[in-house]
Amino acid sequence: MTTANLMSACEVAAQTAAGRLSCEDVARACLDRFNAREPVVKAWVTADPDLIMAQARALDGRKQRGPLHGVPVGIKDIILTSDMPTQMGSPIYRGYRSKADASCVALLRAAGALIFGKTVTCEFAHVAPGETTNPHDKSRTPGGSSSGSAAAVADFMVPVAFGTQTAGSVQRPSSFCGIVGYKPTFGLISTEGVKPAAESLDTIGLMARTVEDVELTARVLTNSAPVQWLSQGTPVRIGLCRTYVWDSADDATRQALDDAARRLAKAGFSVKEVALPPFFSELAETREIINDFERARCSAYEWFAHREQLSERFTKMMSNGVAIPRDRYVEALQRVEVCRDALGEVFSGVDVLLAPTAKGEAPAGLDYTGDHRFQSLWTQLRTPTVTLPTHAGPNGMPIGVQLIGKPYADNQVLGIARLVFETLGRGPVVKAA
Amino acid sequence: MTTANLMSACEVAAQTAAGRLSCEDVARACLDRFNAREPVVKAWVTADPDLIMAQARALDGRKQRGPLHGVPVGIKDIILTSDMPTQMGSPIYRGYRSKADASCVALLRAAGALIFGKTVTCEFAHVAPGETTNPHDKSRTPGGSSSGSAAAVADFMVPVAFGTQTAGSVQRPSSFCGIVGYKPTFGLISTEGVKPAAESLDTIGLMARTVEDVELTARVLTNSAPVQWLSQGTPVRIGLCRTYVWDSADDATRQALDDAARRLAKAGFSVKEVALPPFFSELAETREIINDFERARCSAYEWFAHREQLSERFTKMMSNGVAIPRDRYVEALQRVEVCRDALGEVFSGVDVLLAPTAKGEAPAGLDYTGDHRFQSLWTQLRTPTVTLPTHAGPNGMPIGVQLIGKPYADNQVLGIARLVFETLGRGPVVKAA
Repeated sequence: MTTANLMSACEVAAQTAAGRLSCEDVARACLDRFNAREPVVKAWVTADPDLIMAQARALDGRKQRGPLHGVPVGIKDIILTSDMPTQMGSPIYRGYRSKADASCVALLRAAGALIFGKTVTCEFAHVAPGETTNPHDKSRTPGGSSSGSAAAVADFMVPVAFGTQTAGSVQRPSSFCGIVGYKPTFGLISTEGVKPAAESLDTIGLMARTVEDVELTARVLTNSAPVQWLSQGTPVRIGLCRTYVWDSADDATRQALDDAARRLAKAGFSVKEVALPPFFSELAETREIINDFERARCSAYEWFAHREQLSERFTKMMSNGVAIPRDRYVEALQRVEVCRDALGEVFSGVDVLLAPTAKGEAPAGLDYTGDHRFQSLWTQLRTPTVTLPTHAGPNGMPIGVQLIGKPYADNQVLGIARLVFETLGRGPVVKAA
Repeated sequence: MTTANLMSACEVAAQTAAGRLSCEDVARACLDRFNAREPVVKAWVTADPDLIMAQARALDGRKQRGPLHGVPVGIKDIILTSDMPTQMGSPIYRGYRSKADASCVALLRAAGALIFGKTVTCEFAHVAPGETTNPHDKSRTPGGSSSGSAAAVADFMVPVAFGTQTAGSVQRPSSFCGIVGYKPTFGLISTEGVKPAAESLDTIGLMARTVEDVELTARVLTNSAPVQWLSQGTPVRIGLCRTYVWDSADDATRQALDDAARRLAKAGFSVKEVALPPFFSELAETREIINDFERARCSAYEWFAHREQLSERFTKMMSNGVAIPRDRYVEALQRVEVCRDALGEVFSGVDVLLAPTAKGEAPAGLDYTGDHRFQSLWTQLRTPTVTLPTHAGPNGMPIGVQLIGKPYADNQVLGIARLVFETLGRGPVVKAA
């Protein structure tokens, strides 16, 4: 028995490439953790020990070592896999098996990753939750809709998992579970093979325990140059951005952001306040119009052929969406476009923005996965964001802070994120009870 | 035996709604045409008479009449259907059956349309063609990749069909086969359930024999207000736009465009020349970078799991795409964005642009589906375009002209397109031999 489940993806890949660790050992360590904790955490819809060990043995037999050799990865269950069911958090897809792997799965497999299993998702990545609990407190939500991916990574069952974000479904659960979440610029990671929720918003995100791990995974997916890591003392200009939802943030979130800004300034970062133009607050309304209009179309088959199997919350959203006139939808898209066009001005004189990731700690109870407004503005703006688990709230639950870059400045924001994480340190010790 | 196969979708819907025509009669007329012509045209991969008649009878038994009641529709075979295989023009998907209908199919079914079958597509909507012939000359290509959809509509087997356009796959075959093609603004019609080719470019298009038919179908798909049709004499400002590929257009295409401009001016339209800014010519290069990079990801599963079943042309494109660095891709996206930002200036003082649809007549032979550069610039610019079959070339083959609107001005361009079509008239009589 090893403790390879505690390793980062970078460590696993380095060790397996060097022949110092077998993929079987890694898989077994993760399975041991899974067996110990899954009855409480309930992060997985599908995790088949035989299939996991078969993959591990096959990888150990491979001559070539990909950049993710032997790295176990969790796949949100709205992402297609050729060898496991994809059930989408909906009884409509109970037992459903696709022919193909999604693009992101195929690319990771080719790089040597081990597809550990499918993680719990809210119904079609919307809001009706599964049974996953927060690894830090089983009476609290892990957030959603990428609930199982966040919980599995936070609980050391796998080092990396895929989430998807249409509103806040990567960054909110990452914050609630105390891990690193990376939502790339819209479009950079192909969503081929992912059940669409709202196509102009859907973004695949990467969830891990370190910035280096999301960077390594993103590099495989997008053929990008490596991030140039920054050393302490590199001049970085941070825009402290309280956003238009600041007033509804919990005290713990406000304190976390102010503390982060203060400590970064003390460490030599340049920090200045950046206010979003007032019309950015329209993003709260546009998100609902765009989401509901697009979802009504993306789920047309489920709506017309299986309506009785949709949850009440999904049904309500669909009823709203099918009634939205196209002109209203287009007008909402154009209002977002006005905000996107103003990003140059927002970022003038700063490299990244620093903003709250979520309203506060993970709420008590499993029924409500949390408020998406702190994340969904950046989803609409299509900017890359990284959340870092740097703080804790009054109940000892994780609180994240979010760094936001200009569109396509993904490598810049990842580089700064690592430096910021190193400077601020991890918040509550991530050690599941 | 009726001649309902000659009717437009609007006529069919009006007649069936009024109870003057049964869906069975419509289906039988289309099947008769199919039986007579399919051995030569080869437009269909799947068209099952039993399933077609069963749908027709079910529709005849329905109390409610949707806006497309009884209208037979052809579905390009990269678009998922729950009751027919989706084979994508590739042996990898031979006999493949999806669980669900694509969004566009589900929405049409709910509106009362009859899903007639699946039309031939090039391999994954790329360039390796199927066996479809041009209904006007079986020795010539129908164009691609929406080959079967264009041929089936042109040949009066169905009044409407879905195509998809990533470069020129709707408008080029529409021009070659002498029908009306409508490529909406990017994103307006949900591509959920369509096999992605290149996600930032993929656009579902509608192919029909009248502008009214594409309008009716688009209204069902997008919940849009009806187009306000224009009467003769309405002041319309047309920008004659020769584009940066004018020099490579055939004489017949240049003559068609000049003739169209001359006759429209004579009929009272305001016509002035509009030149694209010189940097728009970069769209020829950016298209290849963006397409190949995105395709390499969208087809990752096929590439890694079934490479030996891909065509030589697809393999070559994929080899190129997997090697493109992300920075080069992002730079191409940003160059396109610069062009999009300049569209306001391009359209200043005009309502629509008038441009060539294709290089010329359908080329001889079935192996090459034609040059996409005349269409793909508008795909990248995300503008709505309508091609109209207004002219003929030296071999009596159709030549289309293209009207282009500003992004989201779909209803405006459709309204003007009908008026232009009425003014110029149909080119060669569309009467398949």
